[in-house]
Amino acid sequence: MIGRDILKELEDIVGAENLLTSRASLLCYSYDAAGQSYIPEAVALPANPDEVSRIVRLANKFKFPIVPRGAGSGFSGGSVPLKNGVVIHLSRLNKILEIDTENLIAVVEPCVVTGIFQDAVEKLGLFYPPDPASLKFSTMGGNASTGAGGPRAVKYGVTRDYILGMEVVTPTGEIIRTGGKTVKRATGYDLTRLMIGSEGTLGIITKLIIRLIPLPEAKKTMTAIFGSAEDAARSVSDIIKSRIVPTTLELLDKNSLACVKGNLGIDLPEGTGAMLLIEIDGDPLILDKQTKRIREVCIVNNSMEFRVAANKEEADALWKARRGASPSMLKFWPGKISEDIVVPRSRIPEMIRRLDAIAERHSLTIASFGHAGDGNLHVNIKVDKKSEEEMKRAEEAIKEIFRATVELEGAISGEHGIGISKAPYLRMQLSDAEIEVMKGIKKALDPNNILNPGKIFG
Amino acid sequence: MIGRDILKELEDIVGAENLLTSRASLLCYSYDAAGQSYIPEAVALPANPDEVSRIVRLANKFKFPIVPRGAGSGFSGGSVPLKNGVVIHLSRLNKILEIDTENLIAVVEPCVVTGIFQDAVEKLGLFYPPDPASLKFSTMGGNASTGAGGPRAVKYGVTRDYILGMEVVTPTGEIIRTGGKTVKRATGYDLTRLMIGSEGTLGIITKLIIRLIPLPEAKKTMTAIFGSAEDAARSVSDIIKSRIVPTTLELLDKNSLACVKGNLGIDLPEGTGAMLLIEIDGDPLILDKQTKRIREVCIVNNSMEFRVAANKEEADALWKARRGASPSMLKFWPGKISEDIVVPRSRIPEMIRRLDAIAERHSLTIASFGHAGDGNLHVNIKVDKKSEEEMKRAEEAIKEIFRATVELEGAISGEHGIGISKAPYLRMQLSDAEIEVMKGIKKALDPNNILNPGKIFG
Repeated sequence: MIGRDILKELEDIVGAENLLTSRASLLCYSYDAAGQSYIPEAVALPANPDEVSRIVRLANKFKFPIVPRGAGSGFSGGSVPLKNGVVIHLSRLNKILEIDTENLIAVVEPCVVTGIFQDAVEKLGLFYPPDPASLKFSTMGGNASTGAGGPRAVKYGVTRDYILGMEVVTPTGEIIRTGGKTVKRATGYDLTRLMIGSEGTLGIITKLIIRLIPLPEAKKTMTAIFGSAEDAARSVSDIIKSRIVPTTLELLDKNSLACVKGNLGIDLPEGTGAMLLIEIDGDPLILDKQTKRIREVCIVNNSMEFRVAANKEEADALWKARRGASPSMLKFWPGKISEDIVVPRSRIPEMIRRLDAIAERHSLTIASFGHAGDGNLHVNIKVDKKSEEEMKRAEEAIKEIFRATVELEGAISGEHGIGISKAPYLRMQLSDAEIEVMKGIKKALDPNNILNPGKIFG
Repeated sequence: MIGRDILKELEDIVGAENLLTSRASLLCYSYDAAGQSYIPEAVALPANPDEVSRIVRLANKFKFPIVPRGAGSGFSGGSVPLKNGVVIHLSRLNKILEIDTENLIAVVEPCVVTGIFQDAVEKLGLFYPPDPASLKFSTMGGNASTGAGGPRAVKYGVTRDYILGMEVVTPTGEIIRTGGKTVKRATGYDLTRLMIGSEGTLGIITKLIIRLIPLPEAKKTMTAIFGSAEDAARSVSDIIKSRIVPTTLELLDKNSLACVKGNLGIDLPEGTGAMLLIEIDGDPLILDKQTKRIREVCIVNNSMEFRVAANKEEADALWKARRGASPSMLKFWPGKISEDIVVPRSRIPEMIRRLDAIAERHSLTIASFGHAGDGNLHVNIKVDKKSEEEMKRAEEAIKEIFRATVELEGAISGEHGIGISKAPYLRMQLSDAEIEVMKGIKKALDPNNILNPGKIFG
């Protein structure tokens, strides 16, 4: 419990105008996209790392929990104040500090919105590839904390692959620097990557050093329509086997297409069972050659239709529809449950067969879409959250989905993290010994269990 | 001290034929390429992770140090038994277990030689880019433990970027699995990257899951000769600014060229001050276009000569000479001291100016070569190790080199690690708070300080 004396001290640190305590304000910080709600006792909006550090030291003194928060757009409850306490909203640390066009490096504060950062570097002919669907509102710090991915991971990797260093406030309030402005660096343990994906349990990121690459000169977007999701998934595997690595290889199954088709801007032929949304980029000289090969692979796998987007507008519409798949689905299925599984790419046809069987066994409707190119599928179960009986069936189905995922050498979270919503299933993925090592690290860095308690390990 | 009883138990675990205790054998495991020597008390050659685990449990029971070892080719003393104890030589874990051409993934044991692995995947049209100069004898596990790099890091990154998962024996003897067969994975802390570069202090790697990419269809090797190292370094920066990312951008300065010129297979014109060895790869369609642009950049920066290798033999000779730079130099300078610094790429001209000034100030000869494209320079100081006075000057010079490196936002080790030889300088790089976090992790995982004690933190 946070008493008046602590609130007074917090006010001294951030200023009265940057400490929120009204019921209405606290409610706004109680949830993320996972839909669970826990009310914090106060929200502090620090101006700089030093203020963050002072709040964390205070928390260690009085033993109250701290939950760092960016845009609160996560899908697993990672930024929700499960044990109440103080939310540190980093919204005032929102500046792009440096874009270094000579070294292809940028330095940003954590609450820079990913999409805004991308636009800023693209204006200079540079490229920051990670592109979670939330990029218009999620933040660079949040992306790092959850280990966010996105469609372009097939070719370019995930957030982890573009963070070279950080400034971090540790759980005991020290301000440390990890990594640095070089790709190579072999000076002790890789604390940068340890922080990435640690979901705010090991440190509060106050600065990020980002690796950039030259912006590809051109790109091409294409769609391939298939009668079945299996044919589409087999094409994904075959395209990569043919030694082309597209920028994205996105799959939308029949039920997903039903939700987004109004926004696609193209008609879907009778009998459509799945669509691939494929993008390639690079030197214009090679794009036609690659398009031809991709088309051949799709045709061999029974593609009903293969189209190249005629212009930027057509491509943008396709991408907008794809990125809006989750909200579009929510309109039709207000009670959906979303999971974020990943399996080795070649196992996707098998995973789709298993998902079909699980849906049938439990009389549920399941829609899958996502990043087939890297094996990452967003599996959505349509539920009426008021029906206890249906929720029970859904819960059984989720367990079976996770079991199948692990059996196929995959993971129960590809890019959303564990947070609170997947914590109950963590032991399906990791052994006791693995969890003990992780908990040992947590305890070493955060002896008072101040930072984001109850997350990941439940 | 390891008594007869412990030796007996070790023998029970690995078999008498796999436990070495003769003076001659022990000597062979006392050093690495850094040249310092500490004699182990026994060397065990386990056959599998289970035997590794049993040895580690024994070490925890009797509190003796364990030093894991691959090829012992490191440059910083990382695999040297500083506190004696038992060396675990992983030489029997040397199999490529799986090359999965559908998912572009391989699974290997730690003592697979990097070059052999590369050849094996290239036969299947796949590519494992990391290429430390030692690749003909260093091992995949050793590369992971030191965070090894190599020339191709400019375009493709380092070992860290290609390891997706591991099987690891923890310092308390548990066998754990980290990561997995997918690029995306957001299930708890990133133990894989924590192990990478931890120099055998946090775990013994018994299996590695490797990410592969399609083998580029073609490559082109070229050389550019300059009157000064600064002109060469400026070309490096300008090539990348022109949005071409070559596979490699290697620099050899005048003193380095003097040592390797007999092996290059090409003549160096009068007045040569530095050479760039540049390689590009990819679709044949774009290589000519890129070569033209690179040539233009070099000419603008006063290149005296620009040549494209006429054929594979010519290119191979150039690479052989470059890879042999360190041993070639040893022939001329038997007493050289090598450092492995890295600075942001655009800072290399400034670093070279500072190196010249340091050499002059201390009346020393310094030769630099290495991976200018990613800012990583191998700086070699010619010394007569018998001259106390000269060694003292060299020591002063090294401190100044490291100070300059840190001032230019670089790191005192790019790809060789800290081991014992750089441990005395670690505090020039990292703050006390950063070191405390690392030591906290070490203590959490290895409460009895069994694994490779005395390394990194000194």
